[in-house]
Amino acid sequence: ASNKKLLVLPGDGVGPEVMREVGRLVGWLQRRRGVSFDITEELVGGASIDAHGVPIRPQVVQAARDADAVLFGAVGGPQWDHVGFERRPELAILTLRRELGLFANLRPAVVLDPLVDASTLKADVVRGLDIMIVRETVGGIYFGEPRGVETLPDGSRRGVNTEVYTTHEIERVARVAFELARRRNNAVCSVEKSNVMESGLLWREVVTELQRREYPDVKLSHMLADNCAMQLVRNPRQFDVIVTGNLFGDLLSDLASMLTGSLGMLPSATLGAVDAFGRRPALYEPIHGSAPDIAGRGLANPLAQILSFAMLLRYSFELEGEALLIEEACRHVLASGLRTADIMSPGMARVGTSVMGEAVQREL
Amino acid sequence: ASNKKLLVLPGDGVGPEVMREVGRLVGWLQRRRGVSFDITEELVGGASIDAHGVPIRPQVVQAARDADAVLFGAVGGPQWDHVGFERRPELAILTLRRELGLFANLRPAVVLDPLVDASTLKADVVRGLDIMIVRETVGGIYFGEPRGVETLPDGSRRGVNTEVYTTHEIERVARVAFELARRRNNAVCSVEKSNVMESGLLWREVVTELQRREYPDVKLSHMLADNCAMQLVRNPRQFDVIVTGNLFGDLLSDLASMLTGSLGMLPSATLGAVDAFGRRPALYEPIHGSAPDIAGRGLANPLAQILSFAMLLRYSFELEGEALLIEEACRHVLASGLRTADIMSPGMARVGTSVMGEAVQREL
Ligand SMILES: CC(C)[C@H](C(=O)O)[C@@H](O)C(=O)O
Ligand SMILES: CC(C)[C@H](C(=O)O)[C@@H](O)C(=O)O
Repeated sequence: ASNKKLLVLPGDGVGPEVMREVGRLVGWLQRRRGVSFDITEELVGGASIDAHGVPIRPQVVQAARDADAVLFGAVGGPQWDHVGFERRPELAILTLRRELGLFANLRPAVVLDPLVDASTLKADVVRGLDIMIVRETVGGIYFGEPRGVETLPDGSRRGVNTEVYTTHEIERVARVAFELARRRNNAVCSVEKSNVMESGLLWREVVTELQRREYPDVKLSHMLADNCAMQLVRNPRQFDVIVTGNLFGDLLSDLASMLTGSLGMLPSATLGAVDAFGRRPALYEPIHGSAPDIAGRGLANPLAQILSFAMLLRYSFELEGEALLIEEACRHVLASGLRTADIMSPGMARVGTSVMGEAVQREL
Repeated sequence: ASNKKLLVLPGDGVGPEVMREVGRLVGWLQRRRGVSFDITEELVGGASIDAHGVPIRPQVVQAARDADAVLFGAVGGPQWDHVGFERRPELAILTLRRELGLFANLRPAVVLDPLVDASTLKADVVRGLDIMIVRETVGGIYFGEPRGVETLPDGSRRGVNTEVYTTHEIERVARVAFELARRRNNAVCSVEKSNVMESGLLWREVVTELQRREYPDVKLSHMLADNCAMQLVRNPRQFDVIVTGNLFGDLLSDLASMLTGSLGMLPSATLGAVDAFGRRPALYEPIHGSAPDIAGRGLANPLAQILSFAMLLRYSFELEGEALLIEEACRHVLASGLRTADIMSPGMARVGTSVMGEAVQREL
């Protein structure tokens, strides 16, 4: 079989540093597991703005389309805060989502036992937490038209964005949630603001119908987004899979991440639709962002990037065994007491990015 | 001087029960402080649907306009879940906000020392928490046009809502935030998604200009809404006043409330613009909602409703002294060990709605 094509986009800030640690795993896969990749690396975000004037070039989008999977680092930083709305680093990720049709963002929020004290929540509330938020990522207010800022006759201004969801968009992301739930605890909570937004009303109806028609075996509940924000703080373990739109998903998935206390641990996957050839576009990224304050100092936690790579092996290449080995290795390294600064706690051994990466490799 | 006109809208669920406890304070004000009210009471929400077929009648809206202040309980419950989008109980509050121009929702999130353990967050993270969220409440996606669900030619459907903010709408709510900050710790954090939404971009610009022009003495920072959701969990005490739009404010203020662990304690105020006669429309309500599961059983915590009444005395009637006395009385009652079920903890004395209300009255 031909090699698997991987596009690597380290991006800005700590992105390149944590991505480097994935390199070790690629080596291990090749040497020990007979798995090889054709790897291409490209600039995105601020790095691409500096080199090419745009946050992502069309040929990079094309390379992402041609790849079997994209591994993304992080983009942005204060030096690009003033480049203007049309050139901002975030457009790299937004463009990839839209152009590759990456509509389902999978955001696990998991509390590993050795890190239960990293949370600002009481250990009793988050111990064993394992929820999955499925966020729609190519629709809603992020992409809806009309949008923009207009100047009114009296010189004042008016900013507009549009939330739009169609039956089709809602169904396909809900389907991902139901499928995931079947492999987990079989419960989906659908989240919207159907008490004030008609788009949320449609969302609720479509999810309800889909469950009745195709997933009667999966337990479905509905929750308003404000209540969901509260319930995630009050009792997060009540959830299994949460499915929601782009904007609510943005806030709720970040909120859920923070419940774990360790953003540096959390991976994500964003999946598109399976095409006629059985290929599914997919992008994997840690959720921690570019962390400009610690960039370049070898301090960043590489585990989220490494675990994103594990998700990539699982979802894009059906290398479940390898994914599990990597996840296991990360858990062992933590159990052995190694900690990067972000998850440091008394009595543990504080290490930097590469020592942590090396330790994972050694475990394997 | 003529009596102050108060419109009381108990609503549904626990609304009427907790409102009853405010009655004791009205009596106290009259007997001991020489403050009298002309009180009118009306049905809203589900109670109004049952009696009149609509969640709020035009004459009730008119009564609210004529009143010096509105004291609201809570609306909604499962029996009205299927009345349809055009008649749902929430329209009572949405209509009052819009018709009276109640654009600034003040949502304090305060952790009182006796209740520091009620939070799911560690005591060290929330001890002494005192933040104020100012949420815009008559604009944004809640009211923007176009909106609705349309059926497409192929039979599928499309739901649309519109986020709109004008310079004027942003300025007036930001001004409320800056004014509040001056009386607190002099710091405002403005929250939007300016990295994906043009309406958020305008929001950020208008708030920035207003601060430069009129509030250079107040510290202003900006934060993206997803990050704000995280920061509220990570380190909520970093905030003083947060100002944000209708939708983000809905989620973030509820999230902030839950950090305190005791929704039954939290009041809110929603203020309009001062008119040519110096009158400012205002509505006060506890944030806990109608809590249908415990309604009618005398279990609900009346303190949020009582503290809403204290806010009413402060903001609408300049009875700061009386407001402080009531707030003080609530603190004493808690310090003495009385607890309703929602804030019960080991070693405390569990009481019902009316015992708690009576205790506050006795303190006074
Ligand atoms: C980078 C940014 C546009 C993005 C978003 O808001 O979707 C990020 O916050 C995320 O959650 O992936
Ligand atoms: C009742 C409902 C319409 C309302 C809202 O979403 O604004 C409520 O959740 C609130 O926060 O006051």
